[in-house]
Amino acid sequence: MDWPEVKKLLSERFTVALVEPKYQGNVGAVARIMHNFGFDRLIMVNSNPVDQEALQRAVNSEYILQNAVLMQGFSDLRESSGIIAATSSVQTLSHKKFRRRSMTPDEFWDRMAGKKDQVTLVFGREGDGLYNTEIEVCDYFIHIPANPEYPVLNLSHAVGVVLQKGFQKFFDGQKVETEDISDDNLARLVDGFSRILNVIQYPEYKRKNTEVMIRRMLARASLTQTEFFKLMGILRKTGEDLEKGRNNAF
Amino acid sequence: MDWPEVKKLLSERFTVALVEPKYQGNVGAVARIMHNFGFDRLIMVNSNPVDQEALQRAVNSEYILQNAVLMQGFSDLRESSGIIAATSSVQTLSHKKFRRRSMTPDEFWDRMAGKKDQVTLVFGREGDGLYNTEIEVCDYFIHIPANPEYPVLNLSHAVGVVLQKGFQKFFDGQKVETEDISDDNLARLVDGFSRILNVIQYPEYKRKNTEVMIRRMLARASLTQTEFFKLMGILRKTGEDLEKGRNNAF
Repeated sequence: MDWPEVKKLLSERFTVALVEPKYQGNVGAVARIMHNFGFDRLIMVNSNPVDQEALQRAVNSEYILQNAVLMQGFSDLRESSGIIAATSSVQTLSHKKFRRRSMTPDEFWDRMAGKKDQVTLVFGREGDGLYNTEIEVCDYFIHIPANPEYPVLNLSHAVGVVLQKGFQKFFDGQKVETEDISDDNLARLVDGFSRILNVIQYPEYKRKNTEVMIRRMLARASLTQTEFFKLMGILRKTGEDLEKGRNNAF
Repeated sequence: MDWPEVKKLLSERFTVALVEPKYQGNVGAVARIMHNFGFDRLIMVNSNPVDQEALQRAVNSEYILQNAVLMQGFSDLRESSGIIAATSSVQTLSHKKFRRRSMTPDEFWDRMAGKKDQVTLVFGREGDGLYNTEIEVCDYFIHIPANPEYPVLNLSHAVGVVLQKGFQKFFDGQKVETEDISDDNLARLVDGFSRILNVIQYPEYKRKNTEVMIRRMLARASLTQTEFFKLMGILRKTGEDLEKGRNNAF
């Protein structure tokens, strides 16, 4: 991909979110490294507004700070985001609770190449990282491999490692042929599932939650067109048969 | 290579040299990112001795600053070094004078893998980078690809990008234990689907192919335990209802 294409892709699909950043210098350094690798969108969760120090460290990237979206809490971030990738340079005990395979930044970007979702890359607090409760509601967990004796990167460096690899994946990366399904088709699959949930009298109060879960699972699975059509066919026939069975039964 | 080997190789063969660093904060950040990726040796050319700010930013990596070698000028560095690699995030006119092809960090480390030389990685001034006269006497010239509209990385980030790729080149990584669902559970999900395919009279000749497809999709989606149980519940209920409907119909 050439630069305008890469820039469009990175800046429109990906957002960086900092959860409770403590040092304004780090926030500024994050803005600069975002600009260096073609990312524009920044969210700050439960953070002070940017100050002079952040703006100074953001050299030529002040616009990212000025356009940054401030959010009150992590739940706001979760609700307003499509796919969320939690990032950490530590593999602590708490992360083991996250029952999802951790990926290296390279593995993560390989996955992203075939998708179209909006993705928020979340980086935790300088001291404590992200809490378990936060990590558990994320869709991906990226771990940055480093010196096992001292793996904790400075916040802006952690952001830098992840974004550099995204830049590299798309900019000089070998173009990966993708035939990922569209958002419309993803929605059609979810509808197919909903219809089934409806007929099998899946409890109403669990419904929405489960539909969200199914949507995320399907997004993660990066379906091809062929897989989409097959799955769609199965869902439709299952829905029809279920409804027929029900009509016959009552 | 395992970690002790990688650490030995990186710390004994490679040295980071900063030419006239201006900001002590950057020097400290460089020390930390060196430690994060297994590099130990630092040379500072025509620099003030490290101060409190540098030590503070070097979090857990003060030893690198305390052991840093101070040199008077670039010619001392040239004379005392084996191979020198000049690094820059800018491709300025002056760099074009350097009659040697610039390499990406990845290309550079690929080359290093087959060698045994002592190598000094040189990073220039925050403002002006390295001078032509300095670049001309270097053996390699590493260029860090970045946003063409703003390619100038902060000094410690430039160091970080180059060192991270060196670390990654040699370190195979400890595979982290994953808590992905077991193969047994994956098989149970596929069975749940098969039962449905059976009741909806999915064509026999397509069956095996489709089951394989479903298995692969589910594997790619890296399901959590919670997702597994929910999905299993839905499949079971769907299968049951379908069978009931069919029994009622015939």
